[in-house]
Amino acid sequence: MPGNTATRRSVVLKRRPRGEPSASDFEVVEDAIPSPGPGEIVTRTIWLSIDPYMRGRLREEQTYAVAIQIGEVMTGETVGEVIASNHPGFVAGDVVVGPRGWQTHNVAKGDHVVKIERHGAPLSAYLGILGMPGATAYAGITEICKPKAGETVVVSAASGAVGSIAGQLAKRAGARVVGIAGGPEKCLWVQDSLGFDACVDHRSHDLRTELRAECPDGIDAYFENVGGAVQAAVFEQLNPFARVAMCGMVSQYNEQEFPPGPNLGFVVGKRILIQGFIVSDRPERLTEWRALAGPLVADGGLIYREDVHDGLDNAPDALVAILSGQNFGKLLVRVGPDAL
Amino acid sequence: MPGNTATRRSVVLKRRPRGEPSASDFEVVEDAIPSPGPGEIVTRTIWLSIDPYMRGRLREEQTYAVAIQIGEVMTGETVGEVIASNHPGFVAGDVVVGPRGWQTHNVAKGDHVVKIERHGAPLSAYLGILGMPGATAYAGITEICKPKAGETVVVSAASGAVGSIAGQLAKRAGARVVGIAGGPEKCLWVQDSLGFDACVDHRSHDLRTELRAECPDGIDAYFENVGGAVQAAVFEQLNPFARVAMCGMVSQYNEQEFPPGPNLGFVVGKRILIQGFIVSDRPERLTEWRALAGPLVADGGLIYREDVHDGLDNAPDALVAILSGQNFGKLLVRVGPDAL
Repeated sequence: MPGNTATRRSVVLKRRPRGEPSASDFEVVEDAIPSPGPGEIVTRTIWLSIDPYMRGRLREEQTYAVAIQIGEVMTGETVGEVIASNHPGFVAGDVVVGPRGWQTHNVAKGDHVVKIERHGAPLSAYLGILGMPGATAYAGITEICKPKAGETVVVSAASGAVGSIAGQLAKRAGARVVGIAGGPEKCLWVQDSLGFDACVDHRSHDLRTELRAECPDGIDAYFENVGGAVQAAVFEQLNPFARVAMCGMVSQYNEQEFPPGPNLGFVVGKRILIQGFIVSDRPERLTEWRALAGPLVADGGLIYREDVHDGLDNAPDALVAILSGQNFGKLLVRVGPDAL
Repeated sequence: MPGNTATRRSVVLKRRPRGEPSASDFEVVEDAIPSPGPGEIVTRTIWLSIDPYMRGRLREEQTYAVAIQIGEVMTGETVGEVIASNHPGFVAGDVVVGPRGWQTHNVAKGDHVVKIERHGAPLSAYLGILGMPGATAYAGITEICKPKAGETVVVSAASGAVGSIAGQLAKRAGARVVGIAGGPEKCLWVQDSLGFDACVDHRSHDLRTELRAECPDGIDAYFENVGGAVQAAVFEQLNPFARVAMCGMVSQYNEQEFPPGPNLGFVVGKRILIQGFIVSDRPERLTEWRALAGPLVADGGLIYREDVHDGLDNAPDALVAILSGQNFGKLLVRVGPDAL
């Protein structure tokens, strides 16, 4: 079976990065592929998801997730194939998705992973549009932004794994949807392929003015992925009773010291809602989203794009890329051959 | 009838203050007491409420309320007695409450004011605990802070008209309630008379440390009235899933330029809710609150304190006082003798 070699490779944290991480902050270690204990399964990794939140786990201080310790394997969502099972729910050849880390092989309690259909969407989709990023977009749009027909919704990091889906969902709700993305190529794709009404380049010399031109009636909801100057420009243009889904602030994840933010006086006067959320708090949303989105993905009603890096050893470079906006679409590392 | 003289006095805006307002930004003008037109009533003012939000109406740019124009009568909530009526719902001697301005006599459409019971609470209470401040506290606590038994709730401007009630409501919900107020006299009253579990003096040399000592389990909800350094100290100590009711930020109302605020990264990681609100958006909450709070006020289940300035001409000085925290309790101007 390809990928089922005698040794396992794992990427561990070698030292905590200050500022932008680099590949040298990590190292690859090898050991023997483990055997499953009682109730456990062993999988070989096919796909590894790379996401901005991972930067937070490299910090000394804890954010919402436990910090990775020096020498510890990086965590991350993967799709893998079962190669050995001591759990009655799994047999070799099953495909599973779960939070199983930056390694070629993984041993886990069978109760902690979810089996997925081989014959549905491409397996990589379970880490993107049908996975945590898709469910995140779904939760933020339906529970916080709550766009109504005719309203204006702005989505930052609009070509990314979460933003691209958030905007399409707002569009399906009948809103005018304006994306913010980095560079003309991404903006073109957001408009032409995803069907956003407009997309503003955050690198342009006057983001405020360009945003205002595309949001002539102000902004009723904002799906926030980036923070910084983009956040400041959007906040100024929020309408009374606007809703802000605080999903991430990737522009500052590499910063040692976070810069000051907006004076919140406008929140009172305009009765603004600002709500932080993390989709993994409510795993039932992921199941719900998969059932809802599966058919839409199959019939082209939801569009997504993947940016694939090859080989586990390149996972650190992929993380560097996503933190500086170099990726274009859902960032994935292909760790082993597909199971199909 | 006392107060029913031939002339009416009104306080109008003379020039827009820069920074802290002063009495010289206003002037008192006289004209004849008007006669009621069709459907109108004329009242003599008994009580005028002075509230921090009034500073916003002195600004050139509009906040949530329409700016007062130069030469225009200052707006404000009042309790008054009907002295002439062309409306079938009112007769002379009725007592009414409504947004009727800084003047000794007022003419208004009868449909725009609410008649109140002479024999219930003291009339001034309808501008404080049974009025807009009380309903504001009620809305913020029940709709946004939603304290649960055992949680820790912090209330800033804890001795003020809104904060004093917000904290008592959180206490009734079973929370540990910590106030923040200016000076030992106010803090003592908040603890001993209102029954908060603790009150921290925001003028103390180390607000953060004192707050942490009183909130050993972190802060689950914050009723925000002041902004600035108090906001920063509280935000640092918010627990995951904390709720922030953004009622006001009085510390900056006199500022020409608002200082930067908090970096909002913590809002994502801790899934914080920050919600601005203005109770007048939902007038039905006021009716509901009066029905609920009336008996509690009557039997001493809710405590309030009034800070009374005498005479309409002193209304500008009263506004200066509330904006610098010199008031102690609900600030009122006694414009004319009581109707009772």
